[in-house]
This record gives sequence, C-alpha cells and structure tokens, in this order.
Amino acid sequence: MYRSHNCGELSLEYLNQTVTLAGWVHRNRNKGFIIWTDLRDRYGITQLIFDEERTSKDIFKKAQGLGREFVIQVVGTVIERESKNLAISTGDIEVLVENLTILNTSKNPPFTIEDKTDGGEELRMQYRYLDIRRNSVKEKLMFRSKVSMAVRNYLNDAGFIDVETPYLIKSTPEGARDFVVPSRMNEGQFYALPQSPQTFKQLLMVGGIDKYFQIVKCFRDEDLRADRQPEFTQIDCEMSFVDQEDVLNQFEGLTQHLLKTIKNIEPKPFPRISYEEAMKTYGNDKPDIRFGMTFFELNDLSQGKGFEVFDSQELVVGIAVPQSADMTRKEIDGLIDWVKRPQIGAKGLIWVKCNLDGSYKSSVDKFFKAEDLAKWARRCEANTGDLILVLSGEIHTTRAQLSSLRMELAKRLGLRNPEEFAPLWVTDFPLLEWDEENKRYHAMHHPFTSPKLDQLELLKTNPGAVKANAYDLVLNGNEIGGGSIRIHDKALQSQIFDLLGFTEEEAQGQFGFLMNAFQFGAPPHGGVAFGLDRLVAILGGEETIRDFIAFPKNNSGRDIMIDAPASISQVQFEELSLKSTFTKKNNLI
Amino acid sequence: MYRSHNCGELSLEYLNQTVTLAGWVHRNRNKGFIIWTDLRDRYGITQLIFDEERTSKDIFKKAQGLGREFVIQVVGTVIERESKNLAISTGDIEVLVENLTILNTSKNPPFTIEDKTDGGEELRMQYRYLDIRRNSVKEKLMFRSKVSMAVRNYLNDAGFIDVETPYLIKSTPEGARDFVVPSRMNEGQFYALPQSPQTFKQLLMVGGIDKYFQIVKCFRDEDLRADRQPEFTQIDCEMSFVDQEDVLNQFEGLTQHLLKTIKNIEPKPFPRISYEEAMKTYGNDKPDIRFGMTFFELNDLSQGKGFEVFDSQELVVGIAVPQSADMTRKEIDGLIDWVKRPQIGAKGLIWVKCNLDGSYKSSVDKFFKAEDLAKWARRCEANTGDLILVLSGEIHTTRAQLSSLRMELAKRLGLRNPEEFAPLWVTDFPLLEWDEENKRYHAMHHPFTSPKLDQLELLKTNPGAVKANAYDLVLNGNEIGGGSIRIHDKALQSQIFDLLGFTEEEAQGQFGFLMNAFQFGAPPHGGVAFGLDRLVAILGGEETIRDFIAFPKNNSGRDIMIDAPASISQVQFEELSLKSTFTKKNNLI
Repeated sequence: MYRSHNCGELSLEYLNQTVTLAGWVHRNRNKGFIIWTDLRDRYGITQLIFDEERTSKDIFKKAQGLGREFVIQVVGTVIERESKNLAISTGDIEVLVENLTILNTSKNPPFTIEDKTDGGEELRMQYRYLDIRRNSVKEKLMFRSKVSMAVRNYLNDAGFIDVETPYLIKSTPEGARDFVVPSRMNEGQFYALPQSPQTFKQLLMVGGIDKYFQIVKCFRDEDLRADRQPEFTQIDCEMSFVDQEDVLNQFEGLTQHLLKTIKNIEPKPFPRISYEEAMKTYGNDKPDIRFGMTFFELNDLSQGKGFEVFDSQELVVGIAVPQSADMTRKEIDGLIDWVKRPQIGAKGLIWVKCNLDGSYKSSVDKFFKAEDLAKWARRCEANTGDLILVLSGEIHTTRAQLSSLRMELAKRLGLRNPEEFAPLWVTDFPLLEWDEENKRYHAMHHPFTSPKLDQLELLKTNPGAVKANAYDLVLNGNEIGGGSIRIHDKALQSQIFDLLGFTEEEAQGQFGFLMNAFQFGAPPHGGVAFGLDRLVAILGGEETIRDFIAFPKNNSGRDIMIDAPASISQVQFEELSLKSTFTKKNNLI
Repeated sequence: MYRSHNCGELSLEYLNQTVTLAGWVHRNRNKGFIIWTDLRDRYGITQLIFDEERTSKDIFKKAQGLGREFVIQVVGTVIERESKNLAISTGDIEVLVENLTILNTSKNPPFTIEDKTDGGEELRMQYRYLDIRRNSVKEKLMFRSKVSMAVRNYLNDAGFIDVETPYLIKSTPEGARDFVVPSRMNEGQFYALPQSPQTFKQLLMVGGIDKYFQIVKCFRDEDLRADRQPEFTQIDCEMSFVDQEDVLNQFEGLTQHLLKTIKNIEPKPFPRISYEEAMKTYGNDKPDIRFGMTFFELNDLSQGKGFEVFDSQELVVGIAVPQSADMTRKEIDGLIDWVKRPQIGAKGLIWVKCNLDGSYKSSVDKFFKAEDLAKWARRCEANTGDLILVLSGEIHTTRAQLSSLRMELAKRLGLRNPEEFAPLWVTDFPLLEWDEENKRYHAMHHPFTSPKLDQLELLKTNPGAVKANAYDLVLNGNEIGGGSIRIHDKALQSQIFDLLGFTEEEAQGQFGFLMNAFQFGAPPHGGVAFGLDRLVAILGGEETIRDFIAFPKNNSGRDIMIDAPASISQVQFEELSLKSTFTKKNNLI
C-alpha cells in the first residue's frame, strides 16, 4: 500500500489524522524556512508543508531537492491551512510532512504540466504520456470512459448483446481503402482490417441475435484530413424485426440517456427533417439547429426585375442574420471577400439591411424597390435590425456556399454555444449518388441499405430518385451517427449490386457469404453506428477529437511518440513472402 | 413494429389477448386438419396453432407451405394449451393464428437448428450464422456479453478508467510474431497489430491515469495449436502506486465478483502458492486444485534399495489415486501404456495397491517390503483402497509426466467437475528462463516485469535464480490471468534488456519511448491481463473457447464463412509498394 488516501479526498474531516499520500510534485514554493509542495495525482492536488521547525532536518533537506514531476510518497498529519484555497477540494487543509520517500526522480519536463501548457501540438504528442498528466487531457479521457460506460449500460439494459466481431477479415474494394494484413500461414493472401463490422452485424441478425451492439475500432486507409484518424471507434448497433421508426426511437432513447446522465439535460423529442428539407432549409445534410438563419428561396421575388446576376440562375436564396443591419461597409466587404475565397467560391454576395426605422438599404437598390426588398424581408422572416444576405447560382453549389456562410456567421455571432445541444434526425436520404466522373452510381450510405419499399418500381426507371430507409443523427452540426434499414432479400440485394456496377461474379466474390445468408431466413433488420470519438468530443463541448483519444496519430498517420509505422526486418518480409518495391528508402535515411 | 411480444414471454397471464409475434419456423407438426408450428426467436419458442375450423382458409393454406427457418409474422390470440409443455416458459399457452405474413423464405438449412445438431464443425463454421441460431451457441455469446458487462461494472465501480489504446502500433521482435500492416502513407513502413497493450498501459501509468482497464483485441501470428486464435480478447488492467499484494487483492475481488454475479458462488479467499511449490506439488504452474492427488517425493524412501530404475534418478515421485486399488491388471496396463505414449514419454509406471485389508501389492514387490510400501503410503497420504502411482527420472520431465497422468486420472475419475470453481494464485515466478538452444535468457513473463527488489544483487551473480514480482491466476487448471509489478526505473529496465541480450541500440530502437518515459517520473505500477475467451469458457463450464467466439477462425487462421484471408488486387500491391514473392500461387488456383 503506497497510500492511505488520494490527493483529492482530504478535508477538515481528516484533521489531525496521519495519512500517506503518493503522487507527483506539481509545484514547489520554497520560502527558505518553509516549503510548500503541491502533490498531484489523478484525483486532485494536496498541499504538503515542510517546515524547518516541525519537519526533521533530513526530510527538510530532501524536500529542498524535490524537482518538478518527481514521484514521491509522504507520511504526515492533516492540518488546517492558514490561507485556504477555495478552488480545489482539498483547499482547507495541508499535510505537515513527517516522512518523505522519493519513489522516482524526473528530468525537467519539456512543457509545463498545466491546463494551459506552453507545449506545442507536436511536442505534446511526442511526450503524450506527459500531456496526459495535464488535467485538461486526463479529464477528456475520463469523460470518454464515462460516456462509453453510459452507452453500454443503456444498451445492456435495453437487451442488446455485446458481440465481438473479427478484426482480421476480407478486403473489399467498395468504399474507402482497406488496411491489409499479410497472412503468413496462407501465403500470398491478406486479411483486411474492418472499416466497420457491417456485414458481421447483419450476419448476427441472420443468426437470430436480435439486438447487437459493440464499441469497436474501425480502420480506413484514407488520406487524412484534419481531425480524421486512420483508426476510430464506433458504437455499432443492429436490431431485427424493426422498421425505421423503431430504430429512431431506440437510439433517440440512447442519445437522450447520454444527454441526461452526462450533461443533465432533460429529454425532449428530437426534431426530424428529410434530407431534401435539410438541403433546402440549411443547404446541408447535417444542419446546426442551435440557431436560425434558415434559407428562404427568393427566385419568384427577385427574378425578372432586370438584375441579371439573378435572372439566369437556378437558385436565389437568402438568410436573415439577426441584428446585424448595423454592420459597417467594411465588415460587409469582409463577408463578401470571405465568400469569394476559393474554399467557398461564390461570385459575390447581395445584402439588404432592414433598418430599425423600417427602411431598407441594399447593394441592389438600383434594381429593387423598397417594396421588393420588403417582400424579401417578409419571406426571410427578417426582423427590423436584421441583415439579409443573398446568394445565387447553381442549386447545389449555392446551397453549400450559403451553408458555409451561415456557419461562419453563427460562429462570429457566438451562436454556436458548445454547452447547448441540439440533436435532430435527418431522414429519407437518396439511395444512390451519381458519380459523374466514373459514370456510375455509388451507394450514398452503403450497398446494404434498403430503398423505400414503395419505390421499387422507380428503382428500375429512375434509380437516382429513389429514397432510402436511411437516417443520420446530427448534433450541433455534426453527423454523430447514421444508419439504415438493410436489405434482407437476396434478389433485391442482387439488384442493388447490379445498379452499383458489380458484376455477378464480383458481388458473389465479395459478398457471397452475405447473399447466401439471405437465403436461409434473414429477418428484417436495421441499425445505426455512432462515431464515438466525435460524439464524445461534442458532448465534451469541443470540436476536435484528438484530445479525446489517448494516443492519436498525426495527419500522416504516424504515432510520433512510439515512432510508428517503422521498417520491418528482412526475416519478416520473407516469412510473409513479400518484397518492398520502395526504392527511395535507402536514400531517405 | 413487427411484434407486440417476443417468443419467450407469453403465459396464461396474457390469455385471450391479441398479440403479434415474429420469428423463425422452428418445427411444424401437420395433422391435416390442424397445424402446430413452433415459432422461435432469441427469447424463446411459442407454439402457434392453425386450425381448419378456426383459421381462415387462406391463412391455413399459407401455413401448410411454411418450411423450416421461414421468417414469419403472425397475429393471433393467446389461448390455453391442452397438453402443456413444462420444459419451456411459454408452455402453458399457444397462439391461435388469425393472420400470417411470410417475411422471408428459407432454403432447407444444411444442418438442424437444434442443441444437438447433425452438423459437423466445418459445416457449422461455414454457416456460422445458422449455427448461432442454435440455443447452445447463442447462449454462449449472451453469456460472454454478460461476463464482459460484469467485468466492466466491477472495474468502473472500482475507479478504473476504460482507455482505448491504438491498434496500429510498432513491430517488436520480442515475444511472439507480430501481424504487420503495410502503411501506404509512409511508404516502405509497417504498423504492427498489438500482441497486448503492454507498453501503452504502462505509459498511461506514467501519464497519471492511475487505474486503467480495457477489454481489447490482441493479435499473435503463431502457428495455431488447437483452441488458439490469431485474434483473442484480453481484459487488460494496470494500476499505479501498488505493490503485488494490492494487485492480487483487487483482481481477486474482480474474480470473486464474477463468480458471485455469474455463478452465484459465495466469495472465499483464493489460495496462494509459489511457482516452486506448484511445480513440486502439482508438477505444473497452473494446477487444477478441484481435486487432490498432490505429488509426494519418495527419493529418501525408495532409493538405495536395489531397484535400479529409481536409484540413479533425480526424482522419484508419487501420487495416491483415491479408491483405485481395485483397478484390474488390464486397467493398470492401460495406464502404463498411456504414460509411455510419445506425448507423455515416461519409461514406465510403478504402482502400489493399498488394499482394503491393509496389505500392499505392488509392481515392485521384488525390491520393496511391505513396510517400505507402508512408508510410501504414509508419505503419499494414501488411504486404504487407494492406488499409488510412481514415476522417476529427471526432475522437470518427471513432474510434467506425472502432472499429465494426474489430470488424466482426474478426468477418468470424474473429478474435473465443470460446475466447481477452484481459483488460486501462483506467485514468485522466476524472472528469466534459460534458452539452451540460443544460449540466452528469455523473460519468463515479459521484459517489463520487475525482479524481487531484494534480489537485485543476485541479478548480477545468478540471474536464473532471481524471482519476479509476477503472478498468475489459475482457475480449474487453466491460466486465466497473469501479471506483474513492472519496472519503473530506467536503469533497472536497461539492465534487464541487457540480460535479455538486447544491445543498447536495439533496446532504444524498440522501447526507447518507454525508457524515455521512465525518465520523467514514472510511478511504481503493476497490473494483470485476463484472457477473456478462456475465462468465459471456463465460467461457462467448457474447455474449448471456439463457441464463445462469434466468428472464430480455424486452425489455419482462416474464416471459412467469409473465405478470408484472400488475394488482394494489383492496385493494392502497388499502392503499398509491395510485391508478392509467392510463386506457387498461380499453380494452386
């Protein structure tokens, strides 16, 4: 037993008790005749006091030698502090040290172990084990653990079975790129790491498991955008004998449970919106509904009035920015520049100020009368004092541009409150997306997603118009989960593979086991997968996932702490019957 | 909503209610004018009745066409059965069907969906999704889920944080062979899949996480013996500021919690035995203590009496087989043949019958008098009616042989009761093993294990004699967990790497990140890892793990259901800068 108590639990209740503590030297204040040391462990900080009068000479001398992050064990008496620290739970007391053991020394850490550290990202990642000592990181990991446990408890109580599916599976070219694993025992062959347990969870449904869940690592060998990881964690779920409504209700329940247990937010029904409606209203299939600024289409009110910019366009669409009519010309020019940046790509931005005195001032006063602008304002549900911003162009591009602008304005106006949570379901996604480059359809969700069963005829005549029984759960502008009702009929599954351009041999070669399974009494089933990393980050009030992952990889997929990936030995190559064709290797080292 | 109730919940309480059920057609009995169908889902079986008089013609006709494993939905009324079935929870009632929907048809399954199926192992694995429908497999998966949840609840309540460690790490030649994963983004380099999260959990301790756990997949590319899997699951745990006693108590607590919640066994303190004692008493470091037949050394009582077989040997050792003095000559000859098999390799077996009348009869009556044999019997704590069996030879081999014989006899005598649970701790393992072939030491546990700190001097003079702070938890003759107190001091870790034959460069190259971490205030720490697959199997009263894994691989590491591993495309090879040197490929296909 290295300790009788931890560094977060002592209070006046323990006055005059002899205690043993162990932890890290967080901070030292040496006043010459008195030394205060903040001792830190996972649970908190306790102030130690070494006092020339009351502490033995040996121990006092030892205390003088303590450096930052030394690991020590002390025996001492709990006494009342003279100047209390209300900021910490142990702030009423300190421990007068009688004995001190140095369990380990420490070199001076390369950055400070404080909430606001002086260490940059790269350095923090290289010494991630020191970074984790910082409260702000440690608490994120503890928060993640708490969320995981809450998920498990809810699903377990709801009758879901936690089933582990295999990690060494088969590579399929559909979707993102697989990580592959050469098999030594099956020479020349490879396993793949799962991008998701999709087919296995469907097979579990065929196997009668009825309700399945798993919190599971998944892998995608993609070029990493910021805040993506090659390995990520899913809350993966599937249910049998359900329709879409059952699935939505079940996982709305889960999300409400998390909001309640983790954030103490009382459950309210989640709004639902169709994909089409979301695109029309927010220009985005994962709208942030913590704030308004919804889209209003102005074609009928703005075209044919001689303003050429609008007249030829597919879409004229505006938003009312609340209480922003007082923006200066310079601020508005800034917005115009912002939308013209190549990342957004708009050609310009029309604005209308709805002045407090009821008048309108716009960048298109030449073309539109006050009564025209008043109609725009009514359409956009603008109040006096609001600023209407209007974009026009091709429908998809314009919506995307206005969506970006809407999010940017919300950020600038402080409307994206990380402690407010606004979930919603987006439903009725299209089944297929047309890939113009390859002249073929892709599955919008994945190839196992069921089309709306009343649209099977349409599937033959106009597949692109067919809607799927697919849904996303969106939280604060992020897709945190998505799923669908699956196909459970072999003929329909074959038809979809066919539409997606699979030959029968390809379909059989890659998904034959699933199609075969469908012939032996597959039940109707559907499910959902949540991205745990993202979910935890958003519940934690942050936008980036990295600090919610204990040992994340950088944007090149490297773990710079352990320096992986790395080269392997010639013996390993030979055992795997492999040869590297990477010739620049020797030059680079 | 496909159902109002499941197939396991209806009883007389629901009499006359209209219910909707969905599930699989388990069995049909067609009496011509009446059809009984057992409808099965995860929750149970409910008997349906279609009756020419009371069921509509259409529905009755449809019912006549139902085949095994069809997926159906029925609406009907709960009525009381005429002949009740006490074996199932719904046995008092049946459902008189009013409406029948066929949700999916099924081909005739390749084996029967019954507890005792007619399907062989290979066929069952190929159609694992049908195998899982069988109660006996489904219940094992549900049992596993229950055990996992109990583990998590206990550890969570005890303050352990569930932290996910990475799956894409670095290959290290120490230990078993790694599975490797070529990195596309870091050309010519490879990740490795973890054999365990060992170094990461130690880094979490350096990071102040204090108590960590994870239920995590691990990977080993070993030639598979029966009942080994290339991917397996560990309950992985680590604690800071603990000594061995703390760790044993904590995980004795976990195991008792499992025995109590899963098997309703009242907690009793686990016996502890040193490695040396275990080898001496059971010839084995994972003794099954559900029964006796402990070893007694007979050198002093048996050597120097003119029996040459014994005289020159390092060890003469016996066990008393309870109430087996009545074995026939043929039975004993059978035992002798059994120990002489090459798998055991004994040269012979000496026996002494302790007859009920107090006399002795032995295979060495020529060399030993009754009073000699009486001394053997007293030494072996044999009762009248027991049979003493004695082996002799080199100490390690002989102990191993007698251990095998002891286990075999226990099996034959029915002493290995799967519903009895006898856990014990084996402690004080040697730190190192001498590898005669390579003339070097191996770490018996792993290279991060701390030697007994009072034996650091011995480490310099006689490393092979040094004991480690390492321990195994043994349950019914199986190692279900093992762990150690780790080294947290850089100098000692370097010394151990040196002893294990690592050059300084190798140690730095492979474990530099850990050694560096030790320089920044690593706390004393230790932990344990349980093999979940084995633990669940033993708690489930079985010896083989395969049916406790949803989708196991066969002995060649293949998943024969999905047919993995498999070949990958030329594009994949090129993206990974790899070439296969496997030339027989084309000939084989």
